[in-house]
Amino acid sequence: MNEQALASRAEFRSVDAATGEPFGDAFATDDHVDVDAACAAADAAFDTFRATTAEQRAVFLERIGQEIIGIGDALIVAAMRESGLPRARLEGERGRTVGQLNLFAGVLRAGAWQGVRIDPALPDRQPLPRPDLRMRMIPLGPVAVFGASNFPLAFSTAGGDTASALAAGCPVVVKGHPAHPATGALVADAIRRAVIACDLPAGVFSHLVGPGNDLGGALVQDPRIAAVGFTGSRAGGLALVKLAQARAVPIPVYAEMSSINPVILLPAALEARGSALGTAFVGSLTMGAGQFCTNPGLVLAIEGEGLDAFVAAAAEAMAQARPAPMLTSGIHAAYNEGVAALDRHDAVELIARGCAGEGVSEGQGAFFATSAANFLADEALGHEVFGASSLLVRCRDEAELRAVLSAAEGQLTATLQMDDGDTSLAARLVPLLERKAGRILANGWPTGVEVAHAMVHGGPFPATSDGRTTSVGSLAIDRFLRPVSYQNLPLMLLPAAVRDDTTLPRLIDGKPTN
Amino acid sequence: MNEQALASRAEFRSVDAATGEPFGDAFATDDHVDVDAACAAADAAFDTFRATTAEQRAVFLERIGQEIIGIGDALIVAAMRESGLPRARLEGERGRTVGQLNLFAGVLRAGAWQGVRIDPALPDRQPLPRPDLRMRMIPLGPVAVFGASNFPLAFSTAGGDTASALAAGCPVVVKGHPAHPATGALVADAIRRAVIACDLPAGVFSHLVGPGNDLGGALVQDPRIAAVGFTGSRAGGLALVKLAQARAVPIPVYAEMSSINPVILLPAALEARGSALGTAFVGSLTMGAGQFCTNPGLVLAIEGEGLDAFVAAAAEAMAQARPAPMLTSGIHAAYNEGVAALDRHDAVELIARGCAGEGVSEGQGAFFATSAANFLADEALGHEVFGASSLLVRCRDEAELRAVLSAAEGQLTATLQMDDGDTSLAARLVPLLERKAGRILANGWPTGVEVAHAMVHGGPFPATSDGRTTSVGSLAIDRFLRPVSYQNLPLMLLPAAVRDDTTLPRLIDGKPTN
Repeated sequence: MNEQALASRAEFRSVDAATGEPFGDAFATDDHVDVDAACAAADAAFDTFRATTAEQRAVFLERIGQEIIGIGDALIVAAMRESGLPRARLEGERGRTVGQLNLFAGVLRAGAWQGVRIDPALPDRQPLPRPDLRMRMIPLGPVAVFGASNFPLAFSTAGGDTASALAAGCPVVVKGHPAHPATGALVADAIRRAVIACDLPAGVFSHLVGPGNDLGGALVQDPRIAAVGFTGSRAGGLALVKLAQARAVPIPVYAEMSSINPVILLPAALEARGSALGTAFVGSLTMGAGQFCTNPGLVLAIEGEGLDAFVAAAAEAMAQARPAPMLTSGIHAAYNEGVAALDRHDAVELIARGCAGEGVSEGQGAFFATSAANFLADEALGHEVFGASSLLVRCRDEAELRAVLSAAEGQLTATLQMDDGDTSLAARLVPLLERKAGRILANGWPTGVEVAHAMVHGGPFPATSDGRTTSVGSLAIDRFLRPVSYQNLPLMLLPAAVRDDTTLPRLIDGKPTN
Repeated sequence: MNEQALASRAEFRSVDAATGEPFGDAFATDDHVDVDAACAAADAAFDTFRATTAEQRAVFLERIGQEIIGIGDALIVAAMRESGLPRARLEGERGRTVGQLNLFAGVLRAGAWQGVRIDPALPDRQPLPRPDLRMRMIPLGPVAVFGASNFPLAFSTAGGDTASALAAGCPVVVKGHPAHPATGALVADAIRRAVIACDLPAGVFSHLVGPGNDLGGALVQDPRIAAVGFTGSRAGGLALVKLAQARAVPIPVYAEMSSINPVILLPAALEARGSALGTAFVGSLTMGAGQFCTNPGLVLAIEGEGLDAFVAAAAEAMAQARPAPMLTSGIHAAYNEGVAALDRHDAVELIARGCAGEGVSEGQGAFFATSAANFLADEALGHEVFGASSLLVRCRDEAELRAVLSAAEGQLTATLQMDDGDTSLAARLVPLLERKAGRILANGWPTGVEVAHAMVHGGPFPATSDGRTTSVGSLAIDRFLRPVSYQNLPLMLLPAAVRDDTTLPRLIDGKPTN
């Protein structure tokens, strides 16, 4: 890019989430030329990168984590100002980001991700001999990652999508979220330093920034991009899916989009601890201004005294809930619109609002209630309001509870608050919850997503665009892999992973062998 | 369905592939009411079916195989007349069909398909305790299966898609291929007998028949269908993909569509055995009238004496190749059109035709040649001509060979004919072939797809609509599964697969444990 091009292009600046004021240096908006250059570099780097050993990529991921830590407090300060999120949360998120990179380093070393299968030749089989067949998983190709606004570290530039795609052997082109360009630039520089330190081709990682949707659209349409990872709004995710499907060669889009995460309060639990549940619920709902994909936006319960106690305690807690700056003025405006729509809805009753905000974009909590019949009559009541707003659906009986759950869209999570006396009812509900959600919790709150091997942060549409996967946890690497089978290949041509002397976890004639 | 409805509906009959004449009993065309009934029954059966044990489903699959064998010769006779395929081929295909069912019974018993992962709670972890997390794979829901015309047994009513979906715990609604309704009805009855014998709900399996595309369209659009398996034409597969993506809740479509399966003749192999390769190639090309997804429709080689010997031998073999009835008059007409288009193409030279056909729909083999430059100049030369037609692309050097391969679309297979002297060239080509195909073969022919654990019958678009999977072999079960995570669930609510006393293959804290 020459200086003339740079001088003529649009610029944009960071915005202080608490004040709405721009600050800091200007960032040049990337354009189609930059998309082309990034994708060309990613494509050129692909064969070299995927030919690295698992150990080499593990070291690379660990090095990215070290470089992120090496940025020091400047990273936390930038993220605080751009996102409005508090220091403790962002320090925790930095730890989680590095932890994710290290988790995938461990996954690479453990080797099960390679999916090795060997069916040795059976030359004497009748009526026909069986050929020698060996399978392994290989990476799809360059991956476009869209950073999320609500996790400026853990779901952004070096977040879970980037970590799992790099682990798989896919070069990554990140479209940084315009709500935190300074944070993104610091992390992108850290990744670039790791690329250099590990002697990898520069095209293994590129970072594009700019406001608006054109840049991301061009990226998804580039023929060299083989898959897309996205965390954000339903409208944004569906727009990317549509572009990806309209390509000459359609590609998978892993979009984590929209979930209201039903919490089901069962009768014995409500009776034993309705009040405590109400207080704890508001804590989960208002944490981080409610800006979590797993925020409990829907509460279901059968009417009774226990529910009354829950509502009273939740109302009291909500009335004291402190507002917090939201991530962007756009998110704040959308939140206020969603809350206002519920507020003026004839069939919806306001239980309580949180304390009013003082800053320009502080989100004020909201808790509403409606009946099962009314919920079932208006599909809009099941849509996500991103932020600290939740809707209680009062059910008359189990049948109504089941009807509401059956009508609900696909979800990331479903939570049961239950005591021993609820076990048989809960057991009847679990099969329904399995069909609706990617993760089922008992006696916890859906916010807080453990980065682990057994985590599923995914779920049926529209929670995600592809409910067969997860975007958090080690299984996420599978999103960027595809199987290849080698038939009767001479030893010299066989990848090391599938040779006879492989030590990887594998199936031999279908039998697990470690 | 009452008698009046039956009386008023359209009927259709089997067609003798060899004569083009209708024969046998009439079949009532199913309509939207039947689609609705089948999907309602499948949905109602889903929770019961998926709650069966792996052993119960294994026995069910084996029983289906026994019932198919129990039909006796009537099945072979019906399939021969409807498809025009010879007895030996169909007897082999029956064995393969039963073998597939038994393979998935074995997969069910081995248990790795359940993908169990357990991350035990760490109550003392700082700064936050880790919850107890357990993951398993569950079935997606009712699956629509579209039978293929070219494998009336192994890829049809009780074929690989049906076997893998039933193994996963998904009820199946088959849209039978109208080219073999009598064969399909016999197999459907066998499956129904197995459903009854195993005391399963009738909705576990339904069979819909009729000509035209409305029936299949209605099936894919039914909101209770959760996934689609299809083997057939590119136009047909893409139409189903489009319908599936336009649904309120989009669903995955596993369409195996279009492949020309490049065979690359390397110089040393050509020099040593060009003539033998030419003869063997024509054998692979013309087998079964070339009606295989893995038919070698593209041959690539660097010019030289070895290639001349290959061409001479192939021309001689082709001139003696016997014609064979094609599956349907429609397929025969499309084949003739495709061959005629190549024949009149200015840049394409005819090497040889097979013997002329005598029956109404006998396919006459065809072998053409063009230059790399001409191939690269016309995308249409890379399109599949379903049947015994193939195109040789003469390359001047390795660079041209790579250019042609790079320009080729995604493929099910890519084959190297090579000798020791070709090893270094082959090693340079393998990474490119991995990016283009699901299976790479050396010194064999792509026709003949082993049903095994390490088989991949899939590949990048447009070979399939989803290159992350296979439709043949035990990995095919993964297409119909999705992960669910259970967080802190009481023992009483945990599925047996993820309890502490599970004996399934599993990851404990990421470590494989058998």
